[in-house]
Amino acid sequence: MKKAAIVGGTGYGAVELVRLLQSHPKIEIRKIISHSQYGNSIAEAYPHLSHVFEVTMEEWNAEELKNEIDIVFFAAPAGVAKELIPELQDSPIQCVDLSGDLRLKSAEDYEAWYGIKAAPNATLQQAVYGLTEVFKEDIKHAKIISNPGCFPTAALLGTVPAIVHNLIQPYPIIIDGKTGVSGAGRKQSAMTHFSETNENVTAYKVGHHQHIPEIDQYLSQAGNQPITTVFTTHLVPMTRGLVCTIYGSLNRNADTAEIISLYRNFYEGHPFVRIRDEGHFPTTKEVYGSNFCDIGIHADARTNQLIIVSAIDNLVKGAAGQAIQNVNVMNGWDESLGLEDFPVYP
Amino acid sequence: MKKAAIVGGTGYGAVELVRLLQSHPKIEIRKIISHSQYGNSIAEAYPHLSHVFEVTMEEWNAEELKNEIDIVFFAAPAGVAKELIPELQDSPIQCVDLSGDLRLKSAEDYEAWYGIKAAPNATLQQAVYGLTEVFKEDIKHAKIISNPGCFPTAALLGTVPAIVHNLIQPYPIIIDGKTGVSGAGRKQSAMTHFSETNENVTAYKVGHHQHIPEIDQYLSQAGNQPITTVFTTHLVPMTRGLVCTIYGSLNRNADTAEIISLYRNFYEGHPFVRIRDEGHFPTTKEVYGSNFCDIGIHADARTNQLIIVSAIDNLVKGAAGQAIQNVNVMNGWDESLGLEDFPVYP
Amino acid sequence: MKKAAIVGGTGYGAVELVRLLQSHPKIEIRKIISHSQYGNSIAEAYPHLSHVFEVTMEEWNAEELKNEIDIVFFAAPAGVAKELIPELQDSPIQCVDLSGDLRLKSAEDYEAWYGIKAAPNATLQQAVYGLTEVFKEDIKHAKIISNPGCFPTAALLGTVPAIVHNLIQPYPIIIDGKTGVSGAGRKQSAMTHFSETNENVTAYKVGHHQHIPEIDQYLSQAGNQPITTVFTTHLVPMTRGLVCTIYGSLNRNADTAEIISLYRNFYEGHPFVRIRDEGHFPTTKEVYGSNFCDIGIHADARTNQLIIVSAIDNLVKGAAGQAIQNVNVMNGWDESLGLEDFPVYP
Amino acid sequence: MKKAAIVGGTGYGAVELVRLLQSHPKIEIRKIISHSQYGNSIAEAYPHLSHVFEVTMEEWNAEELKNEIDIVFFAAPAGVAKELIPELQDSPIQCVDLSGDLRLKSAEDYEAWYGIKAAPNATLQQAVYGLTEVFKEDIKHAKIISNPGCFPTAALLGTVPAIVHNLIQPYPIIIDGKTGVSGAGRKQSAMTHFSETNENVTAYKVGHHQHIPEIDQYLSQAGNQPITTVFTTHLVPMTRGLVCTIYGSLNRNADTAEIISLYRNFYEGHPFVRIRDEGHFPTTKEVYGSNFCDIGIHADARTNQLIIVSAIDNLVKGAAGQAIQNVNVMNGWDESLGLEDFPVYP
Repeated sequence: MKKAAIVGGTGYGAVELVRLLQSHPKIEIRKIISHSQYGNSIAEAYPHLSHVFEVTMEEWNAEELKNEIDIVFFAAPAGVAKELIPELQDSPIQCVDLSGDLRLKSAEDYEAWYGIKAAPNATLQQAVYGLTEVFKEDIKHAKIISNPGCFPTAALLGTVPAIVHNLIQPYPIIIDGKTGVSGAGRKQSAMTHFSETNENVTAYKVGHHQHIPEIDQYLSQAGNQPITTVFTTHLVPMTRGLVCTIYGSLNRNADTAEIISLYRNFYEGHPFVRIRDEGHFPTTKEVYGSNFCDIGIHADARTNQLIIVSAIDNLVKGAAGQAIQNVNVMNGWDESLGLEDFPVYP
Repeated sequence: MKKAAIVGGTGYGAVELVRLLQSHPKIEIRKIISHSQYGNSIAEAYPHLSHVFEVTMEEWNAEELKNEIDIVFFAAPAGVAKELIPELQDSPIQCVDLSGDLRLKSAEDYEAWYGIKAAPNATLQQAVYGLTEVFKEDIKHAKIISNPGCFPTAALLGTVPAIVHNLIQPYPIIIDGKTGVSGAGRKQSAMTHFSETNENVTAYKVGHHQHIPEIDQYLSQAGNQPITTVFTTHLVPMTRGLVCTIYGSLNRNADTAEIISLYRNFYEGHPFVRIRDEGHFPTTKEVYGSNFCDIGIHADARTNQLIIVSAIDNLVKGAAGQAIQNVNVMNGWDESLGLEDFPVYP
Repeated sequence: MKKAAIVGGTGYGAVELVRLLQSHPKIEIRKIISHSQYGNSIAEAYPHLSHVFEVTMEEWNAEELKNEIDIVFFAAPAGVAKELIPELQDSPIQCVDLSGDLRLKSAEDYEAWYGIKAAPNATLQQAVYGLTEVFKEDIKHAKIISNPGCFPTAALLGTVPAIVHNLIQPYPIIIDGKTGVSGAGRKQSAMTHFSETNENVTAYKVGHHQHIPEIDQYLSQAGNQPITTVFTTHLVPMTRGLVCTIYGSLNRNADTAEIISLYRNFYEGHPFVRIRDEGHFPTTKEVYGSNFCDIGIHADARTNQLIIVSAIDNLVKGAAGQAIQNVNVMNGWDESLGLEDFPVYP
Repeated sequence: MKKAAIVGGTGYGAVELVRLLQSHPKIEIRKIISHSQYGNSIAEAYPHLSHVFEVTMEEWNAEELKNEIDIVFFAAPAGVAKELIPELQDSPIQCVDLSGDLRLKSAEDYEAWYGIKAAPNATLQQAVYGLTEVFKEDIKHAKIISNPGCFPTAALLGTVPAIVHNLIQPYPIIIDGKTGVSGAGRKQSAMTHFSETNENVTAYKVGHHQHIPEIDQYLSQAGNQPITTVFTTHLVPMTRGLVCTIYGSLNRNADTAEIISLYRNFYEGHPFVRIRDEGHFPTTKEVYGSNFCDIGIHADARTNQLIIVSAIDNLVKGAAGQAIQNVNVMNGWDESLGLEDFPVYP
């Protein structure tokens, strides 16, 4: 068994890691680290864990981790992992960062979009972007994983095959995202206040979402050409789930069946991407609680547009689940290990 | 007082008309007509009306209507008004159809998208499209109003000024719609079953929504050029409210402030369209229960795209409210009459 | 027109007063007072009011109010009105307090349940409890109204007739309350965080809710005997609406029809209490946005229990609507004035 | 591996069995039986199962089952299992009925509350009520299990220890239940229509719920005295989760800490019942997707009432999970087998 620590113990990413790792056959959780609540049991903050996972949270201590731990999951807000990961860099510990700290290769980009100082360049360059299905070969040899953002996961899995196969023009690609509220974490804010979010759809950070440069960087990398997407996010009144609706102008006459076939080939051997049959589109509930990314495809002859609908659970494939999937790959295990649970439906 | 009848008394459009007309100073409801439940009180079907509006529903009777009624609102499903309106055509009764029966000028288009036989051509040609803010001059002289669909209302009010002012290219215009469930009416279906719709976002009728040709027809008419939009709809887990996020490629360098100013000028004198200040975007909750269409605008310099967010209450501005607004205009009254209520918030 | 001021301008009680008073024929809003945000427009805090009610909020100034205002609504959290109302006591201004500050006649009780110092005794004694249907005669002559809490409104309107008619034993009366989240106001807290409140039912303040002594005090007063109820509250995942399910042991053989008849007689002349027919029970949605309190009754022969279901909109009959109803009564107007709107359904 | 069949393949109980059994180490699903959709894949009806569980549903065939199957789960509506189980009675197949067909020992009671003819008396008498924590000894030797209803599970687990320990009087015991909508199954109805159920709380079947005689029968049996409870159910706008709030008059001075201790002793060795610490109450979200029944306790000195809050996931501990727990016990396995997953939170 590999020994894991989770940093950021009071956040939703951490408790989702706890839920998923509990049945993982090769990883056991040994430490929960929380800067704000060390000394308390995680079950005080999360009573759903009472009686079954009453671990006392600890302070960050790099030396202890080096002696006792094989894998560290960083599930803290942006700004934390970039400070802590360098403290582990001279050890063989595998690090997976679920925040955005290591996603942008350019320090200036990070500073412009996140508004805080970037990670040291050495750390930035060493980190491998953990979009498992697209960058699996790199992930196999990685020691530091930058786990993708929730929106970029759905957006890229939906768009990369179309770009790689030169199906659509590089501009304009429109990505319209809709997400449940848990993506905003447990921190209270006006935008997560029930009475205002319920019965409401809210466009937010229009033109300014920090996932924009992440999508562009890795779509460009996968497509081997510079691509600038148009990406807008909306908050919808549900807890979990995220869908991206993607629009691109078709380069050539291609019908839906052909494109579905191309996508299925692209994702062959990757059990978590499921391409729906023609005429069927995934809903977020159909992936709830699971690591799947479900994709529906429509080539619209009337308008010559390719329309892709890509759905994930933002806390699983968009965070904790993909983090575990990447650790599986890094360790040479089956990428599905511990992630085989079916979606919770209804 | 003008005397009104409402056809389709057991649907959501009808009860919303009842709610709004109750305080209208120049219209009184005299008849509720229901094919399926005549003989029963509307308050049996809708207990929220008990003690305050216990009207017995009646069968359709064209002769009676001609003798007793000035205005007929058709709030029945598609396929009903096209059969009944011709029965009233030799009378001075003002007709407003809230269904899609009279929205497409081409009978073939109607039959292709709705799958049933179209209205008589004379009726189709006589009907005036009731997007009040855009076609007000025609509405003044109309006898038959084809009230816009909920999505086309938000889509067109958000797009028409950009087209009229030649701000964006005619292709591709992407319109991504998100709607609450009440738009599907009271009829039960798998897609309106609570356990499946709650905590879910569902793309539906992708490439096949009957509002597509309606948007294209009237955007082309307003813009005086043929326009083919890309329009996709999503069901979100709320009852009321609808938002369209609209993307178009800017024709020229235009900043957000300039475009906001153009939109405000375009809608001057139209109290129900409210253009938000720069950096602010409307949410559906901010128009809940009211006749407003709120619009937010962002000219995205990075991608050269114009992004418009347009929000309405689908049952008010998207149905019953706009129907009343049109009747106000037809009768030479202030277009706000009976529609001044503020949104219900939160 | 009477001139009104609203204190606590950034809370839900205040914006609901704004919505309801907008169409009141005898009251106009002249001032919105906010301690935390004076100088800003209320429409900045509440964009649904933009373009239609862009009033700049002001600081509290008792002298100005005495010169310019006839009615002051206090819609601030507990602890505010008890400090401010005494400053107006030498003026003819009518005061309505929507908080709990003046509801408990005993200062010790207030201090025990609210945890802060009580209002001056003179103010406490002068305040009349504004449960309109029960204490209307006193309200007619009041100058200070203590507006009932949301739960006590539904609980008392459901229970008082049974007590007055000696239908049930005074112990144990069980009142099981379920409320939407807006009752907690706009202030953010763990319990109003969307991701935790959605898809959840939470029992809260079990045995400690500050509405317990309020219910007991006024049920005892109406029933002319000391009554101690058992009252438990639950948060349910909706914004508006509140229902109390009330259980009492029948004193004698009484069937449902007889009790319905007694209740209807009790509330005769009070248009906002609607007693459902036998076999029918109200839902919160059937009173949404309106001032109604709907009541369903079942005398359970099998268990000898009277079961009452009482539903209100917590922000209308449970707050702003009842406040206006009380002002109507205080001024000798029809108690329905400005409150005739039908519920918003669905 | 034991081989299982599931009858009623298109219902929520069946798909929840599929989800939970997928990781059970000693049971494999060999047949899904559906009367209405045999011949189709279950993944057509439930796309969340696509690619991972594409089993073709079959017709009921008792002879085949006898040859191939060890365990049959009946997850069909009331009226089905009572007809089919007798066909298997001469075989060693273990039967678990999730419907109410075998819960009432008296055929007259069944016919009065369910409105259809009861099961043969031999079947009724052979069936053992599967409230695992209370009737475990009987379950060990059972061949036919009548799996408890969702409400009775939460109600009985919350009430039985208080009755067994003579803490509360047998009358009146008030049980106020609140449930999510999935308890009503996948069949469409007015009460499960999203637009009417969302933002709504509805009391239903007041005095007439078929779970009433079930609660009374087994509470009487556990308590060894005739007990008649008062039980009312409410629908709340969420998909999963159910809570019962239980009120009983204390027989003696007992403080909360003492009662918590009694409850913990009562459920010792039963890992799925978790008793919260004093001052803490469970929420439905804290058991979401899991087999836990969480219980909070308050002895209210002011009113001499014992207040119990008992929460389950209606589809797991209230249906499929408890069914598996019972099969575990019948086969001499650890009762937690395959049910160890933590709740899904948030």
